[in-house]
Amino acid sequence: MTEAEQAEVTGDAYSRLVVKAELADYSPVRGCMVIREYGYAIWELIQTWVDRELKATGHRNAYFPVLIPMSFITKEAEHVQGFAPQLAVVTHGGGEKLAEPLVVRPTSETIIYDSYRRWIQSYRDLPVLLNQWANVVRWEIRTRPFLRTMEFLWQEGHTAHASSEEADAEARMILDMYIRFIEGELAIPVLSGKKSESEKFAGGDITYTMESMMQDGKALQMGTSHNLGQNFGRAFDVWFLDRDGERKNPWSTSWAVTTRLIGALVLVHGDSKGLILPPRIAPTQVVIVPIWRDDVQRDAVDDYASDIAGELQGSDIRVHVDRRDTVRPGFKFNEWELKGVPLRVEVGPRDLEAGQAVIARRDTGEKLNISREELSSSIRYLLGEIQDDLFQRALSFRDQNTREASSLEELEQNLDRQRGFYWVNWCGSAECEQAFARFKATIRVIPFGDESRPSGPCIVCGKPAEARTIVSQAY
Amino acid sequence: MTEAEQAEVTGDAYSRLVVKAELADYSPVRGCMVIREYGYAIWELIQTWVDRELKATGHRNAYFPVLIPMSFITKEAEHVQGFAPQLAVVTHGGGEKLAEPLVVRPTSETIIYDSYRRWIQSYRDLPVLLNQWANVVRWEIRTRPFLRTMEFLWQEGHTAHASSEEADAEARMILDMYIRFIEGELAIPVLSGKKSESEKFAGGDITYTMESMMQDGKALQMGTSHNLGQNFGRAFDVWFLDRDGERKNPWSTSWAVTTRLIGALVLVHGDSKGLILPPRIAPTQVVIVPIWRDDVQRDAVDDYASDIAGELQGSDIRVHVDRRDTVRPGFKFNEWELKGVPLRVEVGPRDLEAGQAVIARRDTGEKLNISREELSSSIRYLLGEIQDDLFQRALSFRDQNTREASSLEELEQNLDRQRGFYWVNWCGSAECEQAFARFKATIRVIPFGDESRPSGPCIVCGKPAEARTIVSQAY
Repeated sequence: MTEAEQAEVTGDAYSRLVVKAELADYSPVRGCMVIREYGYAIWELIQTWVDRELKATGHRNAYFPVLIPMSFITKEAEHVQGFAPQLAVVTHGGGEKLAEPLVVRPTSETIIYDSYRRWIQSYRDLPVLLNQWANVVRWEIRTRPFLRTMEFLWQEGHTAHASSEEADAEARMILDMYIRFIEGELAIPVLSGKKSESEKFAGGDITYTMESMMQDGKALQMGTSHNLGQNFGRAFDVWFLDRDGERKNPWSTSWAVTTRLIGALVLVHGDSKGLILPPRIAPTQVVIVPIWRDDVQRDAVDDYASDIAGELQGSDIRVHVDRRDTVRPGFKFNEWELKGVPLRVEVGPRDLEAGQAVIARRDTGEKLNISREELSSSIRYLLGEIQDDLFQRALSFRDQNTREASSLEELEQNLDRQRGFYWVNWCGSAECEQAFARFKATIRVIPFGDESRPSGPCIVCGKPAEARTIVSQAY
Repeated sequence: MTEAEQAEVTGDAYSRLVVKAELADYSPVRGCMVIREYGYAIWELIQTWVDRELKATGHRNAYFPVLIPMSFITKEAEHVQGFAPQLAVVTHGGGEKLAEPLVVRPTSETIIYDSYRRWIQSYRDLPVLLNQWANVVRWEIRTRPFLRTMEFLWQEGHTAHASSEEADAEARMILDMYIRFIEGELAIPVLSGKKSESEKFAGGDITYTMESMMQDGKALQMGTSHNLGQNFGRAFDVWFLDRDGERKNPWSTSWAVTTRLIGALVLVHGDSKGLILPPRIAPTQVVIVPIWRDDVQRDAVDDYASDIAGELQGSDIRVHVDRRDTVRPGFKFNEWELKGVPLRVEVGPRDLEAGQAVIARRDTGEKLNISREELSSSIRYLLGEIQDDLFQRALSFRDQNTREASSLEELEQNLDRQRGFYWVNWCGSAECEQAFARFKATIRVIPFGDESRPSGPCIVCGKPAEARTIVSQAY
C-alpha cells in the first residue's frame, strides 16, 4: 500500500467512511450520532475486554442518575469552569418549570461524591472501586462521529482511597491496563505520560493520558486517568476516620475510555478501500464467500463452506458465511473489504475439487492457496500475524513522523509542511505553552521517565526547560 | 415461613429493604435512584441472559441518541398524548437557548423511525431486528426504587417487518422469551395475554403483557411487547417496495424489560430477614463463612474453605468466601441472609476434623451436615431445588389469591378485604373498565386462549361479556 492510499482516511473521508461502512449514521439531533450494529459490535468487544479486566482488579459496576442538580456542578470551582460551557440543561419536567435546573451528566464526579459522602465513614470503607457504563452529553460545537460527539458512550471509573499514594497507584494501574488494551487489542501504539496544567481534567490534580498518531499526523487522545487528589472529597464534604484517628477527605481517581476508540481504529488502520480492523477487535474475523454457477455446485460449495466455518468456530474464531444470492461475489468482496474484515476465504467448485481454499488478507491484499487440512491453523497464524503487522505499521508511521523541533520557527514551518509529533523543550509556563496555539498545536503529553528529560532550553522563551514534551495538532 | 413473615416485604418495608440490602440508594435527584454494585450485579445477569437470547434469534444491538427533537414526539398522535406529561425537556445547551427543545428519551420509537426511513427501502432490507440497552427518563410523580423511577435502565427492541403476521409473530416470540426468563431464571410465575385498549402502549396496536402477583396481592407488570402495526412507519414516512411491487409502510414491534425486574425479585421472594434470591439470578449463589478461634485454626479452616470454593468455582457456581476479620460469624450470617444468598456454608475446626460442612438454606432456614465428598453435588442439587421451590411457592401464593368476582359489589368487598387477582367478565367497553378505578383497580391482562372465554355477563353493565379478564390493584 502506498502512503497516498493510507492517507485518504482523514478529514471528510473519515466521516464518509464511518457512514459507508455502517459503523454509525448521522442523526437529526445536531452533533449526535446513531451507532449502528457494526459499530456497536466493536463497542461490545471493547466493553467485554475492559469490563473483565476491571472486575479482575476488584472494581464493580454501579449506576448513578443521568440528571444532576445544577448546584452540584458548581461545587468544585475548577470543575464548573471546565464543564459549564458544555452543559445540556433540563429546565422543565412533567410539564412544569423546575425549581432547580438539572444538567444531563457531562461526567459523574459530582453526583457520585454526593453518594460517597454517605457511604464512606471509616478507612474500613475504603477503597471504593466503582465503574459505570453510561452515556454522557457535552455540548460540542464542531463534531465528528465517534471522535467528538455531543453524546458518547463510555466507562467512567470513580475510586476513593485512604492515601494519596494509593490513589496515584490506582490511576497509573488503570492507565497501564488501557495501554495494554489499546496496543494489544486495537493494535494502536500510544505515547503515555502526564498532561500539562492547562490540559488536565477540570478539578483534578494530575491527568495521565495516552496519545496516538492518526494517519494525517494529528494526535488523538485515546483515554485519560485522573488523580483527583482530595478536591472532590473536600468539595462534597466526604470525610473518613483514618487508622491514625484523624478525619480526612479521601483521595480519589476517575478514568475513562469512550466510543472515540472506534474512530481511532478507522483513522489509524483504514485505507482507500475502507476499514482494516485488527483481528482481536474485529466483530467478524473471517468471512467465507462461497462461489458457484448452478444449484448443484451451490449445494456442494455450501456444505464445504459450512464445514470450514464450523471448524473455525470450534477454534473460537468469529466467522461469517456470506450466503446471499442477491449479490455477486465481487460485490461481497468489496463490501467486506469496506468493513475491514481481516481475512476473506473464497471457496468455489475448483477449490472443493482440489481440497483447498483461497485466503485473501485485507491488510496487504495478498492471496494464498491453502489446503483444506491446513486451513484452520493457517488462519489462526495469519490472524496473529495481521494483528502484529498492523501494530508495527502504525508504530513505524508514528516513528517516521516524530521529529525534534529546536526553535519555534522550526516548529511552525514543520507543522505547516508535515504534521506529526514534535519533541519540544518547554519551561513549564502557561505563557510559553500558549505560543503553540498559533499553529493550532498543543502540548499533548509529557512522557514518563527519561523521555521527557530536557535536551535544551525552552523553545519559546529560551529559559531552562522543565520537560521535553510532545507538541502536535490534535483531533 | 408464615404468611405474616412473607407479607412484610410490601410498601415502605420494600423501600427500606432495597436500601438496607444495598441494591439501591436514594439520590439527591427526586425520583432517581443510585443502583449499587449488588443491584447492578443482578442487572448484569439479566442483561447476559436476555442479550444472549436476542442474539441467538438474530437481533443486534445499536445505539440511538438520548436527546430527541420535541417535534418528533408529536408526530404520532396517540404517542404524544401518552408521553407528553412525562417528558424531561432540555431547553438550553452550551449556554444558549435552543431553537427547538429536546426531550430526554422516554422511549426511542420516534428517533429510531427517523433512521428507519433512511435504512428501509425494499423488502430486502427487512426484517430490521434491533435492540438497544439504554437509560430512559419519564417524569413520574410517585416513585419507588426499581418499581417506578424517573430514570430507569432497560433494553428496548425495535423491529420492522414486511407483513403484519411477521410483526405479530415477532412480538409473541419475544413475549415467550421473556416468560421463559422470568419464570425460569427469576422463579416468578406470570400471567400473559393482551392489555385492554386503554392500558396499551401509546401509539401501538396490541400490547402483550406479563403480570405477576406480589406478596401483598398487588399486580406488577413485568414487561411488555407491542405490535405497533404500521403506525410509526406511517407517522415517520417509512416506505418499502414490497415483492408485489407495492409501496408499503413496514409493520413494526417494540418490547422491553427494565430494572423493575429487580424490584419484583424483592417483592415476590423476600421475607422479614431480607431478600431471597433465586439461585439462577443470585450474584453470589454460595457464601462460605470460615469460623475460627485462633490463628492456627484460622489457617487450617481458611485452606479448607479455599479448597471448597475452588471446587465449586470449577462447577461454575458463583461462590464467595467471607474472610473478614473485623466482624463475627453471626454478623456475617445476618448480612448474607439480608442479601438473600441462597446457600451458606459454615466451616469450623470441628467440621474440618469431621470432614464435613454445615449448609444453611436461605429460603427455609434448614441446616444440613454434609460430608466433604458430597458437598459439591449436594450444593448443585440444593441450588436446583431452591430455584424450583421458590417458583412453586410463588405459584401457590398466586393461585391462593386468585378468585372469581361475579358482581361489582363482590369485587369491591373482596379487593377491600383481601388483595389479589380477580377473574372478571367484561363487555369490552371503556366505560365499564372505568368502573374498576373506584377500587384503584385496573384490567391487568386479557389472558391468551380459553382462559379468557367469558363465563358470564359483564359484571358492570350485565351485557354479554367479550372476555374474562384479570382485575387487580397494581404497583
